[in-house]
Amino acid sequence: MAIRTADAEWRGTLAQGAGHMRLGSGAFDGPYDFRSRMGDGKGTNPEELLGAAHAGCYSMALALQLANAGLAVDRIHTTAKVHFEEREGDWSIQRIDLNTEAWLSDVVISDATVATFAEQAQIAKKNCPVSRALSGVDIHLSAKVARAAA
Amino acid sequence: MAIRTADAEWRGTLAQGAGHMRLGSGAFDGPYDFRSRMGDGKGTNPEELLGAAHAGCYSMALALQLANAGLAVDRIHTTAKVHFEEREGDWSIQRIDLNTEAWLSDVVISDATVATFAEQAQIAKKNCPVSRALSGVDIHLSAKVARAAA
Repeated sequence: MAIRTADAEWRGTLAQGAGHMRLGSGAFDGPYDFRSRMGDGKGTNPEELLGAAHAGCYSMALALQLANAGLAVDRIHTTAKVHFEEREGDWSIQRIDLNTEAWLSDVVISDATVATFAEQAQIAKKNCPVSRALSGVDIHLSAKVARAAA
Repeated sequence: MAIRTADAEWRGTLAQGAGHMRLGSGAFDGPYDFRSRMGDGKGTNPEELLGAAHAGCYSMALALQLANAGLAVDRIHTTAKVHFEEREGDWSIQRIDLNTEAWLSDVVISDATVATFAEQAQIAKKNCPVSRALSGVDIHLSAKVARAAA
């Protein structure tokens, strides 16, 4: 088992205060506030950290699935768009769009390859540990496959 | 509505490959790999990004709850411990421990204050948007309150 740690500090009120979030590995420590979260202020916000976690987890999960299916993957790129919406005064993370592209090596991209890829991309969405943790969120996947440049 | 973006790239196989995760705001771009996620390698991992998102969200939610309850908060510090476990070959985020401490200003910490604080801390755990998104995870909260130094 791995236990991963992170922490956050907040000073003051929700609207006027400010905080920072920090990763246990020390890789990141950055400020956030009401505007960087609910509006267009500079700085980070919990939702984009969640998006990075999801995109990172999904990319690894897809690498595993494609290898298991016999497809040699060169590179995977995934973007996560996290929808943070207010409804009747409650802010919620309603939906995450994952857009992934994979480049395969040593293969001609046949119809069968596209079908196998599409199936494995869906399995990775379901199996990725962050997807499973986020069971309160609608996750929409768009997946494309191409041949890696030689 | 706010849409927050992040992306990740992975190259190579799960065990031998490497990737990076990047926040849409540009605040962070860092490498990760199999060892930094499943073992003790250097670098970040999706789980600590998730932990930072949760600690950051919880701290803001608690600031809101305490203000609504008439308690003036000076500072809130929250640590998230994300348990990433393998069970029968599946890695899962089973549990997150949130440990929060709040320092209140302009108040003597009476028994009534402690009781109000404990109640609001639980409401913040339930209401925080990241908690609600993480409905597949057991969230355990430990909360302490103290008086801010003058």
